[in-house]
Amino acid sequence: MKEYRPPRGFRDFPPEVMLLRREVIGKVVRVFERYGFDPIDTPAVEHWETLAGKYGEEAEGKLIWRFTDPWSGKEYALRYDLTVPLARFVSNRQDLPLPFKRYHIAPVWRHEEPQRGRYREFYQCDVDIVGSPYPEADAEVIEVISEALRELGFSGFKVRLNDRRLLAAVFEEELGLKDPLPVYRAVDKLDKIGPEGVKRELSRAAGEAVAEKVMDLISLGGDLEALRSLCSRYSHNARAKEACDHLEQVLSLVGGVTFDFSLVRGLDYYTGPIVEVVLDQPKIGSVAGGGRYDGLIGLFTGKEMPATGASLGIERIIDAGVELGIFKPPRSTVADVYVVVVDWAYFKYAWRAARELRSNGINVRLDVSRASEEAQRRRARRLGAPVMLFVGKSEAESGTVTVYSPAKGERAVVRLEEAHLVIKRFLS
Amino acid sequence: MKEYRPPRGFRDFPPEVMLLRREVIGKVVRVFERYGFDPIDTPAVEHWETLAGKYGEEAEGKLIWRFTDPWSGKEYALRYDLTVPLARFVSNRQDLPLPFKRYHIAPVWRHEEPQRGRYREFYQCDVDIVGSPYPEADAEVIEVISEALRELGFSGFKVRLNDRRLLAAVFEEELGLKDPLPVYRAVDKLDKIGPEGVKRELSRAAGEAVAEKVMDLISLGGDLEALRSLCSRYSHNARAKEACDHLEQVLSLVGGVTFDFSLVRGLDYYTGPIVEVVLDQPKIGSVAGGGRYDGLIGLFTGKEMPATGASLGIERIIDAGVELGIFKPPRSTVADVYVVVVDWAYFKYAWRAARELRSNGINVRLDVSRASEEAQRRRARRLGAPVMLFVGKSEAESGTVTVYSPAKGERAVVRLEEAHLVIKRFLS
Repeated sequence: MKEYRPPRGFRDFPPEVMLLRREVIGKVVRVFERYGFDPIDTPAVEHWETLAGKYGEEAEGKLIWRFTDPWSGKEYALRYDLTVPLARFVSNRQDLPLPFKRYHIAPVWRHEEPQRGRYREFYQCDVDIVGSPYPEADAEVIEVISEALRELGFSGFKVRLNDRRLLAAVFEEELGLKDPLPVYRAVDKLDKIGPEGVKRELSRAAGEAVAEKVMDLISLGGDLEALRSLCSRYSHNARAKEACDHLEQVLSLVGGVTFDFSLVRGLDYYTGPIVEVVLDQPKIGSVAGGGRYDGLIGLFTGKEMPATGASLGIERIIDAGVELGIFKPPRSTVADVYVVVVDWAYFKYAWRAARELRSNGINVRLDVSRASEEAQRRRARRLGAPVMLFVGKSEAESGTVTVYSPAKGERAVVRLEEAHLVIKRFLS
Repeated sequence: MKEYRPPRGFRDFPPEVMLLRREVIGKVVRVFERYGFDPIDTPAVEHWETLAGKYGEEAEGKLIWRFTDPWSGKEYALRYDLTVPLARFVSNRQDLPLPFKRYHIAPVWRHEEPQRGRYREFYQCDVDIVGSPYPEADAEVIEVISEALRELGFSGFKVRLNDRRLLAAVFEEELGLKDPLPVYRAVDKLDKIGPEGVKRELSRAAGEAVAEKVMDLISLGGDLEALRSLCSRYSHNARAKEACDHLEQVLSLVGGVTFDFSLVRGLDYYTGPIVEVVLDQPKIGSVAGGGRYDGLIGLFTGKEMPATGASLGIERIIDAGVELGIFKPPRSTVADVYVVVVDWAYFKYAWRAARELRSNGINVRLDVSRASEEAQRRRARRLGAPVMLFVGKSEAESGTVTVYSPAKGERAVVRLEEAHLVIKRFLS
């Protein structure tokens, strides 16, 4: 018999994983909503032309799940992120009240080589503000993301901030680079391949002199003073000045943010501030990132529309939280009570008992296997339901149930109508 | 400028739709969990061979989104339902504690001609019990589905029950049919094309005599007595007898279920009881359906594994609930409070005010548009945030905020630290 597995890089989520993911995502949702972001959803499948020309060479050439529909011959693709779908969504609704603040938590698909922590299907958690070109919007995005991480229980993390306008201005002035995107793509690999690797890649692409200069430049950064000192050097450059003023205002609103000139971000569409969050521990790369992309929506509408946002790397966050012990070992079942049918001749009474408890808001799992009492007990223990309920002849005849809490080691025979009270006590 | 839309048959969900869907799905989840079903998830993408040969001709030939990966040449497909992925999931986990009770609420994809209420991407809500061949399991599935509909506020609906073994036994005995699947497929269209249409289709496929006989047979049904009368006619037939005993036990556990011999269900994989739920109003076809499929998991494992389940047609349910007025008009934002910045020179104070309220658990939407007070008020009203908060020079200088409830027509100037109390009163 051959084995049928999920495709490589795809995952099944059993209940214990689902329950943990739900808890984590639920916390993120509560923070996003506390900041007044509203939920939206968009299709998994987009027209290929919707995604084409938005992400840059690598994504477009290799990383997007694209396919031709065998019936219609049309070209489709699975969404690669939640930002381009947002841009399309906004472009279809000219009457949207602006600024539009939305969050979107949903799976995306990437045709990557699967490895530890990297999947072909994974969830993204995005917050974006469309319609405001101001630093207030960038600051709010940074704050909501940081707050979500704090709410999840992470305390040690670094928020790194830079600006694409500042990068472009400095690289143009120092290196005469008209198109800095290839440099960004190389520098973006800093965490993955280290400074030596980046330098090698830059040398190959632009020569050793440029590579050295770039490596020098990106070593700048630090606190507000570092930003000011860099800015004063380029204050004659209008683009740099604009970026510097913008970053200063962002930093005046949100604390705990570090200026880092080596931060470039990989995607092509950023046009202003860019941001990334890295945990102190464990060393797993960035757990959130984003930036301003004032040009993206205009690709759909022909009209510039400012937008800024960030994405929480929820998959990495889950892995890290488990590793750090922040996320408690989850329950493996939603059931509060496992009903063990001691005598199957009295199943109807067990059925009634389950019904009675459920009507009192208790999650009840009724065994329907006709298995032995011992086998049912084993299952109840393995599943980890906090309360066991035994129903047999004596219970059925006396209108009672036997309630047992393995954790408390307590056991009680109670009238069915009062069982929910005892169970709630056992559960608390 | 060309327009970029979602692909035909796919939908964007704006916040007001998301908030309604979330409420409806949340209620369903609570009922599923009260019955002790645990959540799982599986990938959107499956190997084509996982789905192939499971659903029958029509689905396999036309309705599955399948595609060849242009890089690897591998054949993939988007999941067509949640049942075959469950079967694969179970087959990969030989150590799963049985009976395995799970629910799964997630999108599926079908390559159908889109029409009112029929989409190419839609959510399914499935509950299944794997590992019990007994009527208790079928009864529990029927009960949880009915309970979910009641919890959602539907009162008038009919639960129709039949059994594939009974159908097969009767059709074989009366018509000599060894393979009744083509008959099922025709009869399954009863709601869509009416009795005349079904009869025409049957005549074409099997001749007029068979068609007449089938139409006669499927007119049977009604209460428990109708089942018993049909069963007594075929009690010499072992398969019919087995089905009749099974159905009797199901009916003895769950009330409000009608025996209906015209119910056949379209999918190939059913092997025992089948069920369908139809609302009295509006006339929109079935809103839930399912049945027993003891052979499906064995296609993966080579070993028979009993299973039964049902699926709530959540998309139709949402449409019907809105039409019936059961589902209240949703909010269009999660924000409790809209902060109107009266004087942008005092934005930092507005930022602080938003922060203060959020730390008290209030959902606060802060305007970041630098627009006029009037424009911000318009937006707040349009968005429907229940409380407006005004922050300008006088508030900033006195450490207060102006709170206003359009619904109550009340307005108050309060100290920032106490604003959350006033707002909570306005919200209640």
